[in-house]
Amino acid sequence: MIGRFKYDNEVLEGVVREERVIVERGLYCDTFVLAELEILPPTIPSKIICVGLNYMDHARELDMAIPEKPLIFLKPPSSVIGHLGKIVYPGTAKRVDYEAELAIVVGKRCKNVSSGDANSVIMGYTCFNDVTARDIQKEDGQWTRAKSFDTFAPYGPFIIDSGLDVSDLYIRTRVNGKVRQNSRTSNLIFGVPELIEFISSIMTLEAGDIIATGTPPGVGELSAGDEVEIEIEGIGILKNSVVSDKTK
Amino acid sequence: MIGRFKYDNEVLEGVVREERVIVERGLYCDTFVLAELEILPPTIPSKIICVGLNYMDHARELDMAIPEKPLIFLKPPSSVIGHLGKIVYPGTAKRVDYEAELAIVVGKRCKNVSSGDANSVIMGYTCFNDVTARDIQKEDGQWTRAKSFDTFAPYGPFIIDSGLDVSDLYIRTRVNGKVRQNSRTSNLIFGVPELIEFISSIMTLEAGDIIATGTPPGVGELSAGDEVEIEIEGIGILKNSVVSDKTK
Repeated sequence: MIGRFKYDNEVLEGVVREERVIVERGLYCDTFVLAELEILPPTIPSKIICVGLNYMDHARELDMAIPEKPLIFLKPPSSVIGHLGKIVYPGTAKRVDYEAELAIVVGKRCKNVSSGDANSVIMGYTCFNDVTARDIQKEDGQWTRAKSFDTFAPYGPFIIDSGLDVSDLYIRTRVNGKVRQNSRTSNLIFGVPELIEFISSIMTLEAGDIIATGTPPGVGELSAGDEVEIEIEGIGILKNSVVSDKTK
Repeated sequence: MIGRFKYDNEVLEGVVREERVIVERGLYCDTFVLAELEILPPTIPSKIICVGLNYMDHARELDMAIPEKPLIFLKPPSSVIGHLGKIVYPGTAKRVDYEAELAIVVGKRCKNVSSGDANSVIMGYTCFNDVTARDIQKEDGQWTRAKSFDTFAPYGPFIIDSGLDVSDLYIRTRVNGKVRQNSRTSNLIFGVPELIEFISSIMTLEAGDIIATGTPPGVGELSAGDEVEIEIEGIGILKNSVVSDKTK
């Protein structure tokens, strides 16, 4: 597992081993205590590409047709926060939802990658919460504003390397400890290799870019004061609390 | 006017004075001949925010209601090209359109900027072509894929500083020399200060970010071999040619 951290105003990249973080310093290594570091989003993405309606069980729940190709949208880099960062509930929103998602972390610049070669451009995987102002999503029709507020793209805590088989992992959301989403990545309509092929046929991907693969059934509302956890089997738990927007 | 350039593999930022580019080098300046430089997109944006349906005359043409608030969407940084860069017609698209737009260039990191303070966060203005695969836009409903292909965000050639009054400038598209769009920025439904206030209430803006303010009536089709020019009064002419996608 690798991650990005802040300690004493220095940004560090390091390998997480249990409760410690090992940071390479040229010829030697420094070891930090994980609990003493601020956990940053594990990459600095040039873009965040999200996929809509990509779980069989979610499409059935909504009584919607299975899409013939992935439906994509973007979240801006300004919406990113890391594990334990605070989701700010906008003053203009009436309903803000969690959406648990498996995220692909791109490992290198690439274009027109075939599904068979997808693994060669993947750095690894992490947990993603596609936070969405549901009322604004319905009002606008286009999803961008509803999904682009600052703090609406929590991901992390760390990156699990691309050796992990992600084809059948449990994915869960808990709000204040209560399970709200509970599915398996085997329900994905378009799997990781197909998404890499489709998206890289449109746009050049860069190292650190994030592809969020869609959310399973059970999306629901968050309130200020809530604690939301996205857990994916073998990847980890992304935890964030919700606070109200004090600027309004 | 300021711009970014490439010469002999070096990236330069400089001031354009007629046919010359002046580059500061600490205590002295170098002068280059503009014609000998490759013109790059004038900034490296962390995001490109676009506004849909923002011209009165365009809304009337489409017989659509005037929107109550701006409708926003994003284009990825991977879609950017500069003046004289080539627009690549994707093999998967059946119809690719030009859309002439006035672009705001953000000058500094900011959030929650009031319309009255908007000018203090604007570096300047440039020409933008919101190239769109119209068939894909209709097929997907969400506009992201249709507008996110590599080379679908030409802008430039240079940045005119924020002293320019942009409230009533002509804006035109020519394809192979023939005028196809011809309107004035006085037809903008949401003007520059309102857009800065609205968008910065959602997301933190960064220096170099681009806000494309929407297109006037007369959007239409491009073909491989075409040359498309976006001209805005007092700002300049952005010229790009269209080539077919050789990878398909």
